[in-house]
Amino acid sequence: MMKRIIQLIKENKSFLITAHLNLEGDALGSEIAIFLLLKKLRKKATIFNHDKTPSAYAFLPQVNKIKNNLGEKENFDVALVLDCSDSFRTGKVKDYLGRAKTIINIDHHISNTYFGDINWVEPKASSTAEMVYQLCKKLNILDRNIALALYTGIFTDSGNFTYANTTAKVHKIISELMKYNIYPHKVYEKVHSFCKLSDLKFIGRILNNLKVDASGKIVWSLIKKWPKKEYDLTEIIFSILRFLKEAEVFILFKKIAKNKTRVNFRSRSKVDVNRIAKFFGGGGHKRASGTTVEDEIYNVEKKVISFVKRYTNG
Amino acid sequence: MMKRIIQLIKENKSFLITAHLNLEGDALGSEIAIFLLLKKLRKKATIFNHDKTPSAYAFLPQVNKIKNNLGEKENFDVALVLDCSDSFRTGKVKDYLGRAKTIINIDHHISNTYFGDINWVEPKASSTAEMVYQLCKKLNILDRNIALALYTGIFTDSGNFTYANTTAKVHKIISELMKYNIYPHKVYEKVHSFCKLSDLKFIGRILNNLKVDASGKIVWSLIKKWPKKEYDLTEIIFSILRFLKEAEVFILFKKIAKNKTRVNFRSRSKVDVNRIAKFFGGGGHKRASGTTVEDEIYNVEKKVISFVKRYTNG
Repeated sequence: MMKRIIQLIKENKSFLITAHLNLEGDALGSEIAIFLLLKKLRKKATIFNHDKTPSAYAFLPQVNKIKNNLGEKENFDVALVLDCSDSFRTGKVKDYLGRAKTIINIDHHISNTYFGDINWVEPKASSTAEMVYQLCKKLNILDRNIALALYTGIFTDSGNFTYANTTAKVHKIISELMKYNIYPHKVYEKVHSFCKLSDLKFIGRILNNLKVDASGKIVWSLIKKWPKKEYDLTEIIFSILRFLKEAEVFILFKKIAKNKTRVNFRSRSKVDVNRIAKFFGGGGHKRASGTTVEDEIYNVEKKVISFVKRYTNG
Repeated sequence: MMKRIIQLIKENKSFLITAHLNLEGDALGSEIAIFLLLKKLRKKATIFNHDKTPSAYAFLPQVNKIKNNLGEKENFDVALVLDCSDSFRTGKVKDYLGRAKTIINIDHHISNTYFGDINWVEPKASSTAEMVYQLCKKLNILDRNIALALYTGIFTDSGNFTYANTTAKVHKIISELMKYNIYPHKVYEKVHSFCKLSDLKFIGRILNNLKVDASGKIVWSLIKKWPKKEYDLTEIIFSILRFLKEAEVFILFKKIAKNKTRVNFRSRSKVDVNRIAKFFGGGGHKRASGTTVEDEIYNVEKKVISFVKRYTNG
């Protein structure tokens, strides 16, 4: 598979690089690493994303080259779609994909729909950045900037090396990347230290209003005014909830408009929250999923909690 | 240095293993790894600690063998003091140290006082467990239980691989240890998921009451009722404060008795909080320190904040 991809890279001239909506470390790190790799091979490469780059990732190299708009007539030989389970998840970039002669789909999501002409999907990889590392290794192209992008991708998608996808291989790769003068505490600060004092106070109120079911296994909070920001506090809140003993399912109910409630689910290990979100019209992963329900927040809370109780006890 | 230690291990029969007060992952992981190593060499080994083992570490192998009391007449050929900058920090174990023929001091704290007969001190090591790994490697003794103990030691002392002490070497060692079927998410859950719902609500109130100076660089909270528990919430609170942008110094003021205030300091990078704590009769590390002041909490807050302001601006 990698051989075919390398062949296509060598044979073609212009490349469109994109990833999924709601950009995070793995999507951006993988895009930038591939971009730098193509540049080293003297190819024409463009990163084009539906969403703007979150400010937490402004430290990544070449980030100012990322485009959020393209001329309607632009065309590419190859479209490289990274960390993206479905072509619809590229947002407005989708219109450009079909015009490329070849779509290469590189991803580690088990839910990948194999939408590409070439589909390199490795659900056992910690991250798409781990796969891109293999590609760089094969092509013998690696420098400080590529290493920083790949480190950031693997670091964020493995929950700072604490998720189940963190293997011996991941640590081996990271030890290789760190030889290029990567400072882990600095990457940590960049990626995670973006809160204002008012954000922590807001999180404080959420924690203080946490609810739990009788078994102690379902923990949730209801937020009647979810702030619209350029960054999202959801992951931070879930990372704090991880400190709780015995809880299995974590849920946030957010009022995002009148009669519109966003519900985010996280599972510690056993419960498949993808199936719970699906029941309410959403989806995601086994351990992280979400849905948006067109109803008033207290109604949604009642229905969802009742369903989750039955689901986890059944 | 390691050669001499290996020689002493081979020449002697009975070993006392201990570490510092307020046991954490590196102290316990290093003790248990050395204990298992000595057992493999058919030596008589005893782990004896001043403090009880925190329940978060009950998952470590052989943890039920750790003693908190010894007969007054017990003697040992060699005392191995691990992760301990000063022999006084072994608490009541100190009385037994002097009776050993040889004291071996293995530590990575820059503040180590070289109290042993043999002093193997490596301030550049991420953890004492990293040093013990080198010893195991040299002796070619490693198994699943030793790997789990060492993984836990390195993992906790490097802040889940996010502190500045996390080097390429650390990740290389971890990739070696993980080959012994270590599950990182399970270790994470054991070490970090010990909170009750009431703890998170308490932390929520602390976050909601955070104070900050005009520059935004000094952030603190004042807790008038600090709960006495078998576990400590301090690290969790500081890990949450790390999400704040621009803050440099984090301080917690805890009323621990009438006219007795505990002050904990953390620094993001530049400020040396060891010197601040020293000014108030305490001490610690450059980035983590503490002191106990015999005064009413609001007086202590006033004096400390005023000093920190002058210190950080000077």
